[in-house]
Amino acid sequence: MFYHDGKLQYEVKVDKPDPQFAKMLQQAIGGVEGEMRVCLQYLFQAWNMRGPAKYKDMLLDTGTEEMAHIEMLATAVALNLEGAPNELKDKVAGDSPFMEQVMGGANPRHILSSGLGAMATDSCGVPFNGSWIVGSGNMAADMYANVMAESTGRTLAARLWKSTSDKGMRDMLSFLLARDTMHQNQWLAVLEETGGLKGAHPIPNSFPQDEENHDFNYTFISTKIDGESEAKGRWSEGESLDGKGQFKFEKARPYGKKPHLGAASPSGFAQKEQMEEGFTDKIKDVFKK
Amino acid sequence: MFYHDGKLQYEVKVDKPDPQFAKMLQQAIGGVEGEMRVCLQYLFQAWNMRGPAKYKDMLLDTGTEEMAHIEMLATAVALNLEGAPNELKDKVAGDSPFMEQVMGGANPRHILSSGLGAMATDSCGVPFNGSWIVGSGNMAADMYANVMAESTGRTLAARLWKSTSDKGMRDMLSFLLARDTMHQNQWLAVLEETGGLKGAHPIPNSFPQDEENHDFNYTFISTKIDGESEAKGRWSEGESLDGKGQFKFEKARPYGKKPHLGAASPSGFAQKEQMEEGFTDKIKDVFKK
Amino acid sequence: MFYHDGKLQYEVKVDKPDPQFAKMLQQAIGGVEGEMRVCLQYLFQAWNMRGPAKYKDMLLDTGTEEMAHIEMLATAVALNLEGAPNELKDKVAGDSPFMEQVMGGANPRHILSSGLGAMATDSCGVPFNGSWIVGSGNMAADMYANVMAESTGRTLAARLWKSTSDKGMRDMLSFLLARDTMHQNQWLAVLEETGGLKGAHPIPNSFPQDEENHDFNYTFISTKIDGESEAKGRWSEGESLDGKGQFKFEKARPYGKKPHLGAASPSGFAQKEQMEEGFTDKIKDVFKK
Amino acid sequence: MFYHDGKLQYEVKVDKPDPQFAKMLQQAIGGVEGEMRVCLQYLFQAWNMRGPAKYKDMLLDTGTEEMAHIEMLATAVALNLEGAPNELKDKVAGDSPFMEQVMGGANPRHILSSGLGAMATDSCGVPFNGSWIVGSGNMAADMYANVMAESTGRTLAARLWKSTSDKGMRDMLSFLLARDTMHQNQWLAVLEETGGLKGAHPIPNSFPQDEENHDFNYTFISTKIDGESEAKGRWSEGESLDGKGQFKFEKARPYGKKPHLGAASPSGFAQKEQMEEGFTDKIKDVFKK
Amino acid sequence: MFYHDGKLQYEVKVDKPDPQFAKMLQQAIGGVEGEMRVCLQYLFQAWNMRGPAKYKDMLLDTGTEEMAHIEMLATAVALNLEGAPNELKDKVAGDSPFMEQVMGGANPRHILSSGLGAMATDSCGVPFNGSWIVGSGNMAADMYANVMAESTGRTLAARLWKSTSDKGMRDMLSFLLARDTMHQNQWLAVLEETGGLKGAHPIPNSFPQDEENHDFNYTFISTKIDGESEAKGRWSEGESLDGKGQFKFEKARPYGKKPHLGAASPSGFAQKEQMEEGFTDKIKDVFKK
Amino acid sequence: MFYHDGKLQYEVKVDKPDPQFAKMLQQAIGGVEGEMRVCLQYLFQAWNMRGPAKYKDMLLDTGTEEMAHIEMLATAVALNLEGAPNELKDKVAGDSPFMEQVMGGANPRHILSSGLGAMATDSCGVPFNGSWIVGSGNMAADMYANVMAESTGRTLAARLWKSTSDKGMRDMLSFLLARDTMHQNQWLAVLEETGGLKGAHPIPNSFPQDEENHDFNYTFISTKIDGESEAKGRWSEGESLDGKGQFKFEKARPYGKKPHLGAASPSGFAQKEQMEEGFTDKIKDVFKK
Repeated sequence: MFYHDGKLQYEVKVDKPDPQFAKMLQQAIGGVEGEMRVCLQYLFQAWNMRGPAKYKDMLLDTGTEEMAHIEMLATAVALNLEGAPNELKDKVAGDSPFMEQVMGGANPRHILSSGLGAMATDSCGVPFNGSWIVGSGNMAADMYANVMAESTGRTLAARLWKSTSDKGMRDMLSFLLARDTMHQNQWLAVLEETGGLKGAHPIPNSFPQDEENHDFNYTFISTKIDGESEAKGRWSEGESLDGKGQFKFEKARPYGKKPHLGAASPSGFAQKEQMEEGFTDKIKDVFKK
Repeated sequence: MFYHDGKLQYEVKVDKPDPQFAKMLQQAIGGVEGEMRVCLQYLFQAWNMRGPAKYKDMLLDTGTEEMAHIEMLATAVALNLEGAPNELKDKVAGDSPFMEQVMGGANPRHILSSGLGAMATDSCGVPFNGSWIVGSGNMAADMYANVMAESTGRTLAARLWKSTSDKGMRDMLSFLLARDTMHQNQWLAVLEETGGLKGAHPIPNSFPQDEENHDFNYTFISTKIDGESEAKGRWSEGESLDGKGQFKFEKARPYGKKPHLGAASPSGFAQKEQMEEGFTDKIKDVFKK
Repeated sequence: MFYHDGKLQYEVKVDKPDPQFAKMLQQAIGGVEGEMRVCLQYLFQAWNMRGPAKYKDMLLDTGTEEMAHIEMLATAVALNLEGAPNELKDKVAGDSPFMEQVMGGANPRHILSSGLGAMATDSCGVPFNGSWIVGSGNMAADMYANVMAESTGRTLAARLWKSTSDKGMRDMLSFLLARDTMHQNQWLAVLEETGGLKGAHPIPNSFPQDEENHDFNYTFISTKIDGESEAKGRWSEGESLDGKGQFKFEKARPYGKKPHLGAASPSGFAQKEQMEEGFTDKIKDVFKK
Repeated sequence: MFYHDGKLQYEVKVDKPDPQFAKMLQQAIGGVEGEMRVCLQYLFQAWNMRGPAKYKDMLLDTGTEEMAHIEMLATAVALNLEGAPNELKDKVAGDSPFMEQVMGGANPRHILSSGLGAMATDSCGVPFNGSWIVGSGNMAADMYANVMAESTGRTLAARLWKSTSDKGMRDMLSFLLARDTMHQNQWLAVLEETGGLKGAHPIPNSFPQDEENHDFNYTFISTKIDGESEAKGRWSEGESLDGKGQFKFEKARPYGKKPHLGAASPSGFAQKEQMEEGFTDKIKDVFKK
Repeated sequence: MFYHDGKLQYEVKVDKPDPQFAKMLQQAIGGVEGEMRVCLQYLFQAWNMRGPAKYKDMLLDTGTEEMAHIEMLATAVALNLEGAPNELKDKVAGDSPFMEQVMGGANPRHILSSGLGAMATDSCGVPFNGSWIVGSGNMAADMYANVMAESTGRTLAARLWKSTSDKGMRDMLSFLLARDTMHQNQWLAVLEETGGLKGAHPIPNSFPQDEENHDFNYTFISTKIDGESEAKGRWSEGESLDGKGQFKFEKARPYGKKPHLGAASPSGFAQKEQMEEGFTDKIKDVFKK
Repeated sequence: MFYHDGKLQYEVKVDKPDPQFAKMLQQAIGGVEGEMRVCLQYLFQAWNMRGPAKYKDMLLDTGTEEMAHIEMLATAVALNLEGAPNELKDKVAGDSPFMEQVMGGANPRHILSSGLGAMATDSCGVPFNGSWIVGSGNMAADMYANVMAESTGRTLAARLWKSTSDKGMRDMLSFLLARDTMHQNQWLAVLEETGGLKGAHPIPNSFPQDEENHDFNYTFISTKIDGESEAKGRWSEGESLDGKGQFKFEKARPYGKKPHLGAASPSGFAQKEQMEEGFTDKIKDVFKK
């Protein structure tokens, strides 16, 4: 169950409102790298958690924290949009000041749809999508999803930090950058605690590895045909990272034959040309019944 | 540039066609854990690659291989659907045999839309979505996205393997499981080669860490209010995984104040009640102009 | 800022696990009538609230409560899916028990993607979409969006209640039905408090009604051509609900002319036939430059 | 069945073509607040209508009218884009005049995809989505969906009106504003006619209210933990709006316990760490079969 | 402008209600091959039409007719779902009859969301999407989009016809099949009237063909590397269909070099390893400012 | 199976990097008219191909070629974005140069999400969608889908060509325009080879035309009510294009009656007003059980 105190986790100040930066901040709210994704991802993982109880608590702790990050960013969007109407008090109608913002790259829906507030969309106006929320039922796969989300998330925060010179906004972003640093470390810590690379991989570690094909499970296959691939490195020789095999390098070649599907059946309504000969008589029979 | 030879990378045989399994296999084609995603993800990462050339080659090598996996799975779907029309030759019209399939949980669009072939959708019929393709421009973030994709991908393959007893299908899946094992190792190898945890994290490692808030970058914040959180572990004390800090544990509390947005501006068309007093006079002025 | 206590707002018990009911419950999580929508809708409205402070508090109070409802439903989905693996302990491989579930209408992704847990999708597997979150910046419009959400939400809960005979599930739904009753009343109370129909309408009440066309603002227009429309009622005569006009009934007719777009420009790459005569010469000029 | 006369319901004139305004107008065509939504929503509600015949007629009357509004707006978009090619006649190739438009915030797809015509998208280029069409089978829930749609629709029209100073465009919008006023009143009139708040609520009024939990159906639950919530008002004491209860105010607290899911089953391919002890032996048994 | 008469274009009778067939019929309403797509596609093409007026009229005529087809199909869905509640009168609660339908492959949202009516989705429950509406501004491209839509549409209707033995449903489908036959012919007739293959192609015929690369515009390029491609036919030799070239057959080979992107810039927040040497000093400079 | 050589099919040179043109080029990558669509469409059609083997080879040949076109365009996007960071070396922080790009209409996600590389989205940032991939199982329907895709694709390429004056970009586009010319001809050649209009239509040609309604299969139906429709032409009289009928022209009129759905069932949770009289007693009975 959840509670709130109506305060912000960290101060949000906007020194100079900037509708274009409001547009960019939306990426950190409803974008694939944003806070709605991590918040809901951690909560769904918590709710679906089977196994040691402490991981459920941990996911709830951090999922709930992320909700406060959406709140901070939504507040930042609204404050960055406040400038607009203020200026408007003197310029009306004929001046079309909204239009100037839009011509200058602002998000038209910040004016038309949300009335100068945040939306559940990314910086292009594409809505948040539930398919981004990863909760696989496999804890290690989920941890990688989380490290990945915090890595693209921190990269996004760095790019936003570089895109503004507003002191208040940079201060807020320096807090979010710090939290992303922690969260990257946190999910990595779970992976270490549950056995590290050699314990966890190949994920899922509960599938009996005997059942996978042993000719291809530690072989780098190069599909390059014109000269040698330059893709040589740690992955093309030596012990595998999971400690369960030796890397090999191999040129790709087909182990299967040309696939062949049968002629189309009369009932599938392909063109006649796709059906076998004598079709004309058969189809009559089929439809006579 | 790309080429093909019209053959399959590995044999695809279906011993007993099964439309319900065809439906499930779609998850491995157009689902978020599927092969279209990894194929396009590796190719886009290759095309956008800045930095050491060997990683571009490696991504092209594997992205191109994944294309062959989609081909194998699409063939498997078509072969699993072949049974249906054959049976139909004897039962027609009045028998509504298509309907029986659909009542039995088959995908109606395999009959209605694709004419017994594979589609670019997941197992529920939801179309593949380009937002799943991660190419962040940051190599380490991308590698985590790739480990995650191969981890959920191998978990999916294991679940599919368990959902069928068809010998041909299990053989094909044992090949795909093996490739996922290799690919998990492969992306981890890149991470090791480029510095491991201490070299890569916090991602992006090119953002000057001085600029992030040092009070919060290695602190686990627990948002639990009723008793102590059980979320203690490797992440709540000791050296951080990136070697750049010491973990701390802290109870969540607000560092910011209650946020306050100003009154709504006349130009935003909120309700009058949301605007400041004296609005009635102001709005007249505004619209008089 | 947000907190949790790790407990459920109300008890969730499943007497007899039922994967098909798990599928149906997803509609109440990630469907357009579900709890993710109301939770995020109330929170975004709170974060964007301009005007009297108490409405912001109220929206935060209820948005935070809805988070607990998602938690309850996610738990219910996981518990309804627990039955499946238990049965599986005795039937393996050759029996394809997963397949039986899927043939019986269960959601394949509950097995393949979430490992027997809840997902951020509706009952057909369509992902939650951020476009469903209404936060218009206009309080009265938002309140109607909220009443509507709770009305379709309670209708959904009633239909779910009727679709199961599981005592635990009906008890949980009787709690959710009660909360929907309260929330319908709650948003209606805000509308009454801020002036009722005559105060709020037409929404937005801050647009100067002088500027709208007075020939058409209280006229019911019937587009029926074959005989009289039966659409007579409270809306076709008498005082309007907002108290600002008298209803009229009118047969539809065009007040505008047939629209005419000019010939296509050479630069738009329509077919030549869509361009004006003499195009051939002009286009040469255009491309000569 | 439907008919057309090829004329516009109301005059559409553009005094000065403006590609940026064309972009904004798209919100009123294919946006969530737009005319495609209301048109299809009213028609689907009509086609699915069970109950008194006059409401079906009424929904058909208005759904058909809305089709004419899409037509007007599509014409307005095309006319606002006509300016572009005219200017182009003198500036070609090297001047990249299309680019200037795009740099100035115009929608690139108006040039690249539609050839200077309207599209079925919103102002950000996001396609119209069928999930926005509400037809719940419950008439009162549908009426609230309709009031909400016309409230956000009229708010959008007001914001568009404020965003242009083009006389022709303002005249067209003053007509659409008037129709939205009527339609808000019209759906409210249906609600009044079918019993008003006390007759309709809680929606659905056909679910036996005895079956809902009576401890929570008229209680405002505040989830605020730090001091008292300011959310006191019409909804926290006195008779409920539906006349069926008395409002109460209560601090949130959990009535349920900490949820507990069992250990992961071997067949679900979680990590081993998520499974019960002794798993190693069991899994062998499972796969031995 | 549009009108209705409240009647169906053609009789819709359901002899034996069938919820599974209701699910399949949804493909013809909100699916990519369905009537919502053609209806809106023809109307948008009409509204955006530049060029000879008769084509605008024709598109309006047929777009308006398609609206009546959606109406017929929506009625058919509702009638096919009517059986369900009737049976329910005797079986209640404990019997979970809704569940039986869902276990039998019915669409859960027909029960949960629409209350036994049609929805704006396809047969899998995926919402209609505005991106399917093609209106390119180029008349010939649009005509091909229309022939394609009617070809997949008639194929769908044939498959639906084969999936039911209900006399009423087959009669309705025989009407829709007939209309699709006409509409295929109709759009082909426009192509013939505006010049046929040699007049229209390559589309757009207004782009000066001199500007396209003449080494590759009539050459079939085979990317097959293992033996000769079997892809020889009408397209590999002889005069091209547009009469403007001679077909050639060529083995694929690269005319470009290996692409090379520069090192990543400090401002893009790639990993340090992706940046040029000496980066460490430069980055300090950058951030010193 | 697939291979690559790491080279470009045709040279990609950017003389003057241009972030706005990078944004526009995205339409040709991930847009509905773009190369991801044709690539995947031809490959899925190949993999699902039943019938003469040469068509499978041909589709593989061209699908594989299109992959190289995505590669060219992705490279072009990355090169057009390279300019940005270069300029940045001198202007930092306070200058907010990223913002200037965005204000100038650049895609914010090229900075925030992809780190100056291509994405799987269209020019508005809307993700690629799998529903655009047409593979109907009917070869002729598929060929029309392909002609349509190449017609809108070539129109897009022409518009891009006109939107830039960069010599390198125009050279690349002149190659892509040429390939689209070939591909239009190629799919038309398949249609000619398999019987032309009279052989293929009505598609599917395997549905027994006797079963379609013969009163309506060659009749143009005009839904215009106000005066005569101007939609007279090749389609309103004379032999049909498929050679199987004579065109007729007819004014639309209803052949069906007003549809009537029964009263709502108690179990569907409509409002009471939608149910039959005496409902109150019945519902009690229903819930008593």
